[in-house]
This record gives sequence, structure tokens and C-alpha cells, in this order.
Amino acid sequence: MARIYNFSAGPSMLPEAVLVKAQQEMLDWRGSGMSVMEMSHRGKHFMAIAETMKNDLIELMAIPANYKVLFLQGGASAQFAMIPQNILNGKTTACYVNTGAWSTSAIKEAGKYCEVKTVASSEEGKFTGIPAFEKWRIDPAAAYLHYTSNETIHGVEFNQVPEAGGLPLVCDMSSNILSRSVDVGRYGIIYAGTQKNMGPSGVTVVIVREDLVGLAPKSVPSVFNYQQQANSDSMLNTPATYNWYLLGLVLQWLKAEGGVAAIEQRNIQKADKLYQAIDQSSLYSNPVDKDCRSRMNIPFVLADAALDKEFLKQAELNGLSTLAGHRSVGGMRASIYNAMPEAGVDALIEFMAEFERSH
Amino acid sequence: MARIYNFSAGPSMLPEAVLVKAQQEMLDWRGSGMSVMEMSHRGKHFMAIAETMKNDLIELMAIPANYKVLFLQGGASAQFAMIPQNILNGKTTACYVNTGAWSTSAIKEAGKYCEVKTVASSEEGKFTGIPAFEKWRIDPAAAYLHYTSNETIHGVEFNQVPEAGGLPLVCDMSSNILSRSVDVGRYGIIYAGTQKNMGPSGVTVVIVREDLVGLAPKSVPSVFNYQQQANSDSMLNTPATYNWYLLGLVLQWLKAEGGVAAIEQRNIQKADKLYQAIDQSSLYSNPVDKDCRSRMNIPFVLADAALDKEFLKQAELNGLSTLAGHRSVGGMRASIYNAMPEAGVDALIEFMAEFERSH
Repeated sequence: MARIYNFSAGPSMLPEAVLVKAQQEMLDWRGSGMSVMEMSHRGKHFMAIAETMKNDLIELMAIPANYKVLFLQGGASAQFAMIPQNILNGKTTACYVNTGAWSTSAIKEAGKYCEVKTVASSEEGKFTGIPAFEKWRIDPAAAYLHYTSNETIHGVEFNQVPEAGGLPLVCDMSSNILSRSVDVGRYGIIYAGTQKNMGPSGVTVVIVREDLVGLAPKSVPSVFNYQQQANSDSMLNTPATYNWYLLGLVLQWLKAEGGVAAIEQRNIQKADKLYQAIDQSSLYSNPVDKDCRSRMNIPFVLADAALDKEFLKQAELNGLSTLAGHRSVGGMRASIYNAMPEAGVDALIEFMAEFERSH
Repeated sequence: MARIYNFSAGPSMLPEAVLVKAQQEMLDWRGSGMSVMEMSHRGKHFMAIAETMKNDLIELMAIPANYKVLFLQGGASAQFAMIPQNILNGKTTACYVNTGAWSTSAIKEAGKYCEVKTVASSEEGKFTGIPAFEKWRIDPAAAYLHYTSNETIHGVEFNQVPEAGGLPLVCDMSSNILSRSVDVGRYGIIYAGTQKNMGPSGVTVVIVREDLVGLAPKSVPSVFNYQQQANSDSMLNTPATYNWYLLGLVLQWLKAEGGVAAIEQRNIQKADKLYQAIDQSSLYSNPVDKDCRSRMNIPFVLADAALDKEFLKQAELNGLSTLAGHRSVGGMRASIYNAMPEAGVDALIEFMAEFERSH
């Protein structure tokens, strides 16, 4: 079968050039006689791969020198606990913004370690918008302010960096990192799983400002301790070496594509097209406020939910895969991360129009 | 360059057949039109891959039905904290046996959560043996007894399962799992990183008896909680999907090779050969007691340490890679896990003899 267009929310589509490169190098990385996945993580070959990967990320995101860049495990879910465990620093409260399923999970986990003050929530509106910044009630005594820059399930994305009222700003950027320009210097911590815009699953990128490193109490597990991980260059335990390598290949691909600014333009174009097709249709609709619709995850419902099964079946037959919405919300969802070519979005739009005509 | 023999302690050599299969399936897994690393972890393709992998492990190790089999992240280092956090169950002490660098690390981390009683230690003898079982002072009030079945750095391996005096027996099997037959029913918990005998790094296998699941206090991070991980089939956070797939390929290879009993015979043969060559030489020596020499990691020193550099250089030129001992002990180390062919050991022995003749 030919390669399909895969709209999975993550793990998700990768650039074909990355897969081809990995395939070519599988049994013998650049004359080393080894696969990357067989290399000692302390050996010269892998150390070079790791260094290039880290430097490429620093370059692509223009990460300032006063940040540590860590490559950890356990996904965003691990960070939900690691963040309060590392940076409460004796304080007893933390501020969270609730804009969807992932914010909600972060809030729940943080509640094990501190009092969570939800400074704003769009839950009443079924997570279809972002509460106006001026209404956020930030507690200046809190340890930090946490938000989720893109809600993968609800399709809600921040287009501006919120004001944190002097608190360190902590952001779960799992599903839109590297899809748009970000001023890293405005954040205390940025974290993201790799499985959407950066590679396969199995690595969590954590970018943490130096003053937030070294605050964890001794009871925190060593692998959860930012200071210990930073001291050992994220090799406190054996890192997921092959995943680092693949992340590196994706970063090299992104650089060759023109970097974050270039991919952002393409992402805007892809998303605009698809929202336009949805808005102009009488069969499809998207419930999210227009000023915070996600460029990455585009949920939509069919006017007649009885058609859902047929839609998914026909889409699959047309090489358009994994379009079912998350089980918690139903309907459809098209995840169109960096690696989804514009041709994939075009094919989806064409299919949707054809399906609408025939039903 | 041709494929080399790679004696790395981990990540380490993989069966060539596994790499070839992964290479073939890289862009399109069995007509799905996707790479495994692009698949949703909740989709039917990946769910089938995960189920086969888990069942193959259960079959290969004959894991009884009253055990949960988890595929987590963070390596053995994460388990060093997770074990006391999950199974102290209100008790304040745990028993540990210290037979080398990895036991020492486990003891250090456990000390954050309980009083560690070191029931036996071979530290005085520089970790070249295992203290006689009858001298172990097991505390019946402790929560569990922990030991490391193979010390990767010191090359010391248990040939018998210790008596745990009624306590749950917990074992770090990272560097010899699947290399020899094990009676899983004698253990409370077996855990192992995948990067030695099971695949690339990035997954930790945890086999835990059901009565030890569900004892963690609420303060334990969700991703660290055995119960929560078991309830979600190790998908509490997005698993390292491609690593699971590769682990599955290694398990299928092992089954085709005749399973654990067959590979154990080959491992005995490989190790016996190499120890014999070392013992008969006047240049090389291994300091470990003969009844507990590791079949997996064979450290040796040269009578004249000034020759070390030349030995490593010449070995590399002969396609024998990563033979330097761990930086903490120096000398040489040949790690000969399941995937190291007997021909690799033969080539090493031949090279060592030639090097001895010419120096």
C-alpha cells in the first residue's frame, strides 16, 4: 500500500524524508558498523548525535543561554507531577488555567502536591474558548502559573502569551511546540512530549530557566529532579537513544524546511483552508471561538452523527486515516502537525466536499 | 563498513534479523501505509503489536497469571524510587544486598523513602563475589528484600535465587533478563531496562505480583503508581510505541531461536569460552569468584595497564568495538548479551591471543 495521510493526534505522521533517512542508516550509521540503537550512550558516535540534536533545538527555538534543555521520559504526565515537586520551593499554592482535557489532568496531578488555584476556566463553555486575560485572578503568592498552549482534544490554542503577574510561567506545549514562533525568554518552563511535532513518542523536552533548577526537596525521585538530570546531561538513567536520534532527524528536516517561521506560515495556510471548508459547509461544524482555534488539532462534527461511521470508513478507503475525535468528545478531529503536507489537507477537504455532496 | 561486533554494556548489539525487519517495515508496516512510530497508540494496528509483544514476553518467561506486566519509562533508576514508593505499605525498613555499583545506586535511592538494611555486602572484597546466603541477616519486619541478579559493571551474577525469609523478593534483572531460565513465581517484583537483552533503550519492563499492586500512597506521582499503570495497560502516558515494537521484534527473534532455554545454553558456551581464554592467558585476568562470574558482562584487566590504549585501538581496527571497562573500574569489559553471536566471541578470543603474542 502507498503511504497514507495520517491525521492521528499523536503519535503522528512524520516527514517521509526522516523515515527514509532512518531506514537507510538502520544497520550502519555513517560507516560505524552499528545501528544508532545499538550504540553506547557514552560513546563518541552517540554523544555527537545528542549534541547536534540539542544544539539544533536551541537554534530552532532561539533558547536563551540561561535555560537548561532536558530530554526526559514519562511524557507530559510525568511533568504534571515533576513541576510542583521541583519548583514549589516551599510555597503551598500554584495557579492553573483550565482550557481543556490536558489542563484538567495537569490540575488534578498538581493537587497532590499543593493547593491549586484555578485562575480561569472555560469548562462551563465546554472548553470552546479561552477566558479573557483581564479576568484571570492570579495569586501573587503562588509558586507559578501553568497553562496549556494548545488543547489537543478540544482544539483550542493560545495566540498570545498570557501575562503571569510576575510568577514563573509554565507551559505544556506538547501539541504545538515548533509549529509557531515562541519567545522562550517569557517562560519559566516549557515542556512537550515529542510525539506530535518532534518525532516518535518516548522523549519529553523540558526547557527550564536556571533559577528554577535546584529547588527540589530531597524526597523527589532522582530521575524526577531537574538539577540531577541537568547535571548529568539528561543521562542520569540511560536515555531513549534511538528516540533522541529520530528527534534529531526531525529537527534537521525542520531546519531544511526553513525553520519555525517558515513552517508557521505553512501551518496557518493549512489550518485556514480547513476551517474555511468547515465553515462554508452545512454538514460540518467546529464549535471553537474563532480567535483561539487550534492550527494543529481541528475537531469537527457532522450535522447528522449517524453519518460518523460511514464518514470514517470512506475516509479510510481514501487513504485518510485516524480522523475519529477523541473518545471523550466524539465527532471528528484532523490533527495537522508540521509533518502533514499541504496535499494531505487538500485531500481531506476534497473528500469532505465529496462526502457532503453524496450524503 | 561491514557490521562490527559491538561489546557495549547497553544500549548494545541487536540481532541483525531484527534490524533488517525494522528497516523493511520502516515506511509501511504490513500494508498499513504508516511507520509503526506514526501510529496512534490507541489504534488497532498498534494495539495488536502491543498485545503480541506482551504475550510473547509472558510466554518466554512463563509469567504466572497473578502477575502484572508493565512497560514503563525511566529505566531501572526510576524503579529504584518506585519500588519503595509503591510497596513499603506503611513499613519503614527494606532489606538490600550490595553486590556492586547497581545495588549501591538502588540502596542510595531507597534511602530517601525508608531505612535501608544492607543484609549482606561484598564491597570490602571490591565486589568480586557474593556473600554466602547463610550469612545474610534478613529483617522479617522489612517490606521486601532487593538484589541485583547481574552486576553489569563488576561482572558478578547470581546463579541461584536467594531465600528471602518470607519477604517479597525484588530483583533488578536489567542485564540478564531473558538470558537464562527464571522461576518468576519466586519473585515479588522483577524489573529490567530493555537496552541489554530486549531491544533499544527507552522501556522498563516491570513484572509485579498482584498483591504488591495498589499499595502506593496518594502522594506518589501517577506515572510512578503501579496500580494506575496497570489499570491503563501501561498507557497512562503515551508509551514509547516504537520501542515497544522493537522489543516485540526481539522477543519474536528469541522465540525463533528456541526461547530462553536454548539461548541460555548458547550463553553458557560463549561465556565459558571467554573465561577459559582469560584464565589460560598470562596477560589477561578476571578477578571475580568462579561461582558467580557473569555470563553477560566479562570484565578483565591487562597485566600491564600501559597496554590498555593499544589494546582498544587494535580491537577497534579489528571490528571489535566498545571494549573499555566502565570508567569507575577501568580495564576492559566484554558484554556478550543474547544478541552477540558466538562468532563475535570467537573473534574476540582470537584477537586477544594475537595481541598477547605480539605484546
